[in-house]
Amino acid sequence: MTNLDKIMKPKSVAVIGASTKEHTIGSDIMKRLQEYKFNGNIYPVNPKGGVIEGLQAYTSITEVPGEVDLAIIVVNSKFVLDTIDQCNAKGIKGLVIITAGFKETGAEGAEMEKQLLAKVKEYGMRCVGPNCLGVVNTHPEIRLDGCFAETLPERGNIGFVSQSGALGGGILNILKDLNLGFSQFISIGNQADVNAETALEYWENEEDVEQILLYMESIQNPANFRKLATRISKKKPVLALKAGRSAAGASAASSHTGSLAGADKAANALLAQSGVIREYSLKNLFSTAKVFANCPIPKGNRVAIITNSGGPGIMATDAICENGMEMAPITEETKAKLRSFLPAAASVKNPIDMIASAPIEHYTQTLETVIADENVDMIMVIYLPFLGLKDIDVAKALMEIKAKNPQKPIIGVFMTKSDFFTSISEMDVNMPFFMYAEEAAEGFLRLDQQRKWIERPEGKIPTYDIDYKRAKEIIAQSINEGRDQLTTRESIDVLEAYGIRVCKSGFATTEDEAVAIANSIDYPVVMKMTSKTTSHKTDVGGVRVNIQSEAQLRAEYQDLIAKLTERGLIDGLEGVIIQEMVKGNREMVCGIATDPQYGPMMMFGLGGVFIEVMKDVTFRIAPLTDIDAKEMIKSVKAYKLLEGARGTKPAQMEQIEETLLRLSQLVNDFKFIDELDINPLLISEKTGEGIAVDGRIKVRMSEAQEALGYCCKDGVCACGVN
Amino acid sequence: MTNLDKIMKPKSVAVIGASTKEHTIGSDIMKRLQEYKFNGNIYPVNPKGGVIEGLQAYTSITEVPGEVDLAIIVVNSKFVLDTIDQCNAKGIKGLVIITAGFKETGAEGAEMEKQLLAKVKEYGMRCVGPNCLGVVNTHPEIRLDGCFAETLPERGNIGFVSQSGALGGGILNILKDLNLGFSQFISIGNQADVNAETALEYWENEEDVEQILLYMESIQNPANFRKLATRISKKKPVLALKAGRSAAGASAASSHTGSLAGADKAANALLAQSGVIREYSLKNLFSTAKVFANCPIPKGNRVAIITNSGGPGIMATDAICENGMEMAPITEETKAKLRSFLPAAASVKNPIDMIASAPIEHYTQTLETVIADENVDMIMVIYLPFLGLKDIDVAKALMEIKAKNPQKPIIGVFMTKSDFFTSISEMDVNMPFFMYAEEAAEGFLRLDQQRKWIERPEGKIPTYDIDYKRAKEIIAQSINEGRDQLTTRESIDVLEAYGIRVCKSGFATTEDEAVAIANSIDYPVVMKMTSKTTSHKTDVGGVRVNIQSEAQLRAEYQDLIAKLTERGLIDGLEGVIIQEMVKGNREMVCGIATDPQYGPMMMFGLGGVFIEVMKDVTFRIAPLTDIDAKEMIKSVKAYKLLEGARGTKPAQMEQIEETLLRLSQLVNDFKFIDELDINPLLISEKTGEGIAVDGRIKVRMSEAQEALGYCCKDGVCACGVN
Repeated sequence: MTNLDKIMKPKSVAVIGASTKEHTIGSDIMKRLQEYKFNGNIYPVNPKGGVIEGLQAYTSITEVPGEVDLAIIVVNSKFVLDTIDQCNAKGIKGLVIITAGFKETGAEGAEMEKQLLAKVKEYGMRCVGPNCLGVVNTHPEIRLDGCFAETLPERGNIGFVSQSGALGGGILNILKDLNLGFSQFISIGNQADVNAETALEYWENEEDVEQILLYMESIQNPANFRKLATRISKKKPVLALKAGRSAAGASAASSHTGSLAGADKAANALLAQSGVIREYSLKNLFSTAKVFANCPIPKGNRVAIITNSGGPGIMATDAICENGMEMAPITEETKAKLRSFLPAAASVKNPIDMIASAPIEHYTQTLETVIADENVDMIMVIYLPFLGLKDIDVAKALMEIKAKNPQKPIIGVFMTKSDFFTSISEMDVNMPFFMYAEEAAEGFLRLDQQRKWIERPEGKIPTYDIDYKRAKEIIAQSINEGRDQLTTRESIDVLEAYGIRVCKSGFATTEDEAVAIANSIDYPVVMKMTSKTTSHKTDVGGVRVNIQSEAQLRAEYQDLIAKLTERGLIDGLEGVIIQEMVKGNREMVCGIATDPQYGPMMMFGLGGVFIEVMKDVTFRIAPLTDIDAKEMIKSVKAYKLLEGARGTKPAQMEQIEETLLRLSQLVNDFKFIDELDINPLLISEKTGEGIAVDGRIKVRMSEAQEALGYCCKDGVCACGVN
Repeated sequence: MTNLDKIMKPKSVAVIGASTKEHTIGSDIMKRLQEYKFNGNIYPVNPKGGVIEGLQAYTSITEVPGEVDLAIIVVNSKFVLDTIDQCNAKGIKGLVIITAGFKETGAEGAEMEKQLLAKVKEYGMRCVGPNCLGVVNTHPEIRLDGCFAETLPERGNIGFVSQSGALGGGILNILKDLNLGFSQFISIGNQADVNAETALEYWENEEDVEQILLYMESIQNPANFRKLATRISKKKPVLALKAGRSAAGASAASSHTGSLAGADKAANALLAQSGVIREYSLKNLFSTAKVFANCPIPKGNRVAIITNSGGPGIMATDAICENGMEMAPITEETKAKLRSFLPAAASVKNPIDMIASAPIEHYTQTLETVIADENVDMIMVIYLPFLGLKDIDVAKALMEIKAKNPQKPIIGVFMTKSDFFTSISEMDVNMPFFMYAEEAAEGFLRLDQQRKWIERPEGKIPTYDIDYKRAKEIIAQSINEGRDQLTTRESIDVLEAYGIRVCKSGFATTEDEAVAIANSIDYPVVMKMTSKTTSHKTDVGGVRVNIQSEAQLRAEYQDLIAKLTERGLIDGLEGVIIQEMVKGNREMVCGIATDPQYGPMMMFGLGGVFIEVMKDVTFRIAPLTDIDAKEMIKSVKAYKLLEGARGTKPAQMEQIEETLLRLSQLVNDFKFIDELDINPLLISEKTGEGIAVDGRIKVRMSEAQEALGYCCKDGVCACGVN
């Protein structure tokens, strides 16, 4: 049930814990409700009764005469559970629990919060909080200011969720200052019941909410968040500020994929895959919101710049290009029209420099002309104060034209005094104004990002025909032997069972066996040791490449045995793998890492010795859609290598995509796979295929045992491990 | 002569072209001079005479009765040259030529500007402009507002140079708004005489200028700029916004080094080597200036955060860490003190969260306690409005403590309404205040950057004992044959003459010669074709590696000849180089590229097939100091590879540094070297040396001919080329 109407659109509100004492929450909430002129009944509740903010207070919620949709609870935490019972007795279905002192204070509080949630569920209520700032709905028919922020809310089109109550209050202040109104605000606090996902779903079809802003420190249910956000972000922009990026501790994982995958990589991947626009500072969050509040989604990424000063035009061009957009190629027709009224010294190429003498008519005529140019998707209008031309007059003239031409995004860059922005913040505007070109360029970038997201196909998660049984047997064997880390050979075999192109190979335990396999594969070959005790083979000289002949193979084999014996590592040796030597110097890597919160993540990028130095890798949360896989491959710098730089063979992109998708299917089938590396996934110079030359798989033992039914069922060990 | 006193500190000013007509420059300049109460005589000059702004106008500058230090010229461009003559007759040594219509308008204007400069030089004058906004000096004893910006100047400690006049005006408005005062301002316009370098030098020992801000679109004399800025930036921060980054056309250079070295890379290298803090937007330029205006240089990079709200504390921590600074490890003593007065729910670890109930006393006590902590170098104080605590009261309390403790940088982050910032901008402040934590973090980063620059040793440019004669002979030979591109062999030989470690090799023109050389070097060897017609050898299979035996060498040689014959490339073949095969999988690149404006640039980074994909390279303007070379090596990601990742041998860093320094010496000795690539500079797995395995040198032919005295002396060809 995601209907929050009783909370967000109540017809009557009770404030339980209302107070006459100044600068207390119980007093502030009452004041705000009245000041903002709530469109319904307000019932203060206080055991002492009396008059609070001019209203008769009731000594208990049960004594309130009328029906109550929403109870805002500000009583001491020790009374909260009882209060919920009373609310139930009164038939109330909506709660906002502002009271703190729950999960955030430790074990005892967490236990109380658990009881709180149980009651909420039992009574069929919905509850915002506890430990929150409250909720707001600015709809003229509602006018609910149920929070204790300093400022009264500003009407607008934003739905805003804040996980930090305190910050939420600060943000409300700033929003008002920026002339950024909102329609609904929910301070989710400890998010015992209502969380960001609930709000997203509630606002999905709420016309009054045209964009959604999230301040998050954690994501409660990543899979559900992904599902909801992916759908809703196609309908309205979803912007998120996710804090706590640096707090993530270093991962203790032993694989490449694991060590490159910090927690913030997972959050980043999740948000990107879900179409959520991630911002890294409040400032950018608000700037972007301002742009979405006043701009349509453009048709393309071509920007025209109109300016009355050369320097800012250059800086704007820098910003547009550095943000990956295009300078619009103005048509000859437009240029001719511009020339007809601009002075000779003006430049009619993009950036269009009307020069410092431009009067207001040049602004309006130029803007109208440029809007009509079909090569232009978005327009930046720069103003510097010259020769008595007033900023506010220019702004008004631009807005008039914008009103008549709402189809293209227009952003004003007004390098003028801040009192201009104060004036603007008190006006009804239909386009965003910034002080600096860089801010406008970032705004265009966001609009373009949303355009691309809307145009992006949804993608599907394919299911390949694979040999599940074989993979399961191989993994079971390892688990049966108490090994959470599969051997190289087992790992490669599992990959092969899932249809991943691995290089031809065989396993040998003696020199003669090795020679027999090599002779059947054909030289050159690679010889790799496989060991149950040594994990990084190259460190001990366990990989010998480009073996050209039987004689060389015999020599290398003997040398390996000697080296391992010398180092005391010979006991762990299982044997050697003799592999087809795939020729190619492009080594990619792909794999799976598990984030404790976000689950399995896929990685792809540049492999080989460069992997941890260059960190040219990208992550996505599993399962992957075909579009996700395509985007992963294109998003790394090494993509240019795959395309075939300087005479190398272009890689088979679809085959590499399929490799990623098959891996995704693998980890979906065996959810206990903790880490998986294919390093290198070598691009064959002959065929362009990505070939898994080496592989490592690690599982979470107890989960795997449970999933495969091997061990300790009903307390009885069935597999001999324990 | 860099004394600009007659311009910047005049005792009397004449305005030639003063006017009574509203909204003209000749009127505005007169108004500003008077409104700002210039501390000296003002003489309006206009052929019509009369009274202008209440002062008697003279019909000619020569008729002005008293002595005139500075003439501000706003007459039509066609009268400017005559006016300069008259100024000379009057004995004036300082000119500010606001008049436009010179170099910026084309050839005719450029010629006029040339004549203008000739006169200025002849008369021993200094001149700002033409085509500029004017100059300002806010010193109380001067009070010169000689520019036509909209706003009167704000007193402060910034020296500001703007290349764009129009932008300069806009900036003056904004500075005033931001409460960022300046001491002197020069709009250099076309910079016929006075340019950014003149201003830098003039302000070097000017006490009134405590930091220097530059807005530049070009750097006139990069070598001189580097010399001055390097010296002056150690005394006071120099901040630059260099626009026109994207405008740089793609380089047509054929070498790796050349194609990676765009014009902005050169500007970037120059600014970094000179200790200039580069900003990429006006917004950041001003934020940084605000920080330097109100903060001392810190002793280290450890930041403490004090906050009354958790969320912003987390965001601030993210910003500090992402900017590469450290969260200060608060001492136990400090924690104990904090615990003595903060509530139990407060967190005394960094970030220090005093929680929302913190009264003003907690702010002051906490700040004082943290200032005293020797583990803390810089402090961010975050405020959100709660429970009636007023922003301006907190700000004042913090500033009082700051006044008593000026030794550490303190920045306020006040997430409050913008009228707070308006109030602040009207006050005398002693610390910067921002709305967002990210802005404060960037401010700390800049302070720390300046600290590191001040602490950075100056470095020296070493001179190695090299074989100049041999290098010259090799180059001369190529030039003599009309080749601007040296062969691989010649290139390697030049490098060897300069003491650069190249791999052992010999040149062969027949199969038997090749075998003889290989046998003397010892296998494995590499065979490389050398050709006067084919530049990218790998594209035609001209490089054969890991040749293990005489038999293999003979086979490869025969195959190469066959392939070249087949492709019709056999005629260009000079022979093959047989080289020692250096084992190692770390391929670096170093080289020289020439920027048309900035001259020779050194490059260093990751080489091999990754060079153009990963672009993990860094640039410095030649000549390099030893410190430059060290920093280059450390600044690329591949540095970790050099340090010896995963069992590889650490590279000989000093030997690689020396390689760069010897290259720098080479290009200094042969200034006509246009491009030079060492790719790869292979790191030997055996010794850790960087060994030049392949090299390419290209010269600028006519310059080289002239420098080496080979050709066309006095119109007579001496070398047979022409």
